[in-house]
Amino acid sequence: MASSIDSFVQRSLGTWESKRSGHNLAFRHVEEVESTIEILPVSLDDPGLAELLASHGIPADSIASPFHMAWEGTSDWDEDATSKGSCTLVPLPSDNSNGRLLRSTGYTEQIPAIGTYRFSDDGCFILITPYEGSSAEERIWFATNDVRMRVSMMRTQSGRGVLQASFSSEIRSGS
Amino acid sequence: MASSIDSFVQRSLGTWESKRSGHNLAFRHVEEVESTIEILPVSLDDPGLAELLASHGIPADSIASPFHMAWEGTSDWDEDATSKGSCTLVPLPSDNSNGRLLRSTGYTEQIPAIGTYRFSDDGCFILITPYEGSSAEERIWFATNDVRMRVSMMRTQSGRGVLQASFSSEIRSGS
Repeated sequence: MASSIDSFVQRSLGTWESKRSGHNLAFRHVEEVESTIEILPVSLDDPGLAELLASHGIPADSIASPFHMAWEGTSDWDEDATSKGSCTLVPLPSDNSNGRLLRSTGYTEQIPAIGTYRFSDDGCFILITPYEGSSAEERIWFATNDVRMRVSMMRTQSGRGVLQASFSSEIRSGS
Repeated sequence: MASSIDSFVQRSLGTWESKRSGHNLAFRHVEEVESTIEILPVSLDDPGLAELLASHGIPADSIASPFHMAWEGTSDWDEDATSKGSCTLVPLPSDNSNGRLLRSTGYTEQIPAIGTYRFSDDGCFILITPYEGSSAEERIWFATNDVRMRVSMMRTQSGRGVLQASFSSEIRSGS
């Protein structure tokens, strides 16, 4: 049987049309972002992957299902600007439900990030990534094979406050 | 130690300022709703509660932490209209993590509803309520003691499709 992270990555592969509602909890603003997200597998003999692993001193046999994610989106706050980016993500499972996730670049900072993930008993993928001065918590689950839900939160470093939260509904393209 | 549902209700008591982003998955519309939600305990000797239990043939000693919820909100689709409502909710625990929830009136239909709840191992309250032709799935969790997150979905009766999804960030009033 494939481990949780393998099947989670497998189900995530493809192109997704995402709608994200970002809630600023202090000012109660809402920002709507539409984006296209593409998730592709990364081959184990990919040179970029080998370099990423080497730079972190990670042995190739400790990783599972590396993947590449690219996104391109527009916000209702500035419809002329598009935001786009991409990163390589490498799961480092410690057991079937837990592990770490290495990201070649972070969402909010342009430095590599290492987060800790776990799966809840109802299959929700929960990722916590520390950043300077804050931490990001993401929960991703499949409502159906073609609908993915994602809730993200930014916490203050102490973990006691939540600055921002966002919700994305992601629909498989062409489904 | 209080059971999961008792402590969940206890933490939920109070007044909450809610911001909800509703995603229509077919048309990709987003609707923003702001509302105030008040959650109050219901006394075990409340006459309305006794009547509700009697009408469903539920013995009073099988319930835990009944509560009353009232909401009043405005939508960005029709700012002149306010929607308001209230209901009594009665948990019927079967064990520490599972049970049923009786609602005096449903959110979407004006008839009593009985849903099934469970707590995931990370404390997320998951409620599934069947309605005629569809079912509602709600996930509610506390990001902090004063920030509650809620994701709701409407599924088609077969459970294979998701028609609508919404995300609410709820902040304790005065916090």
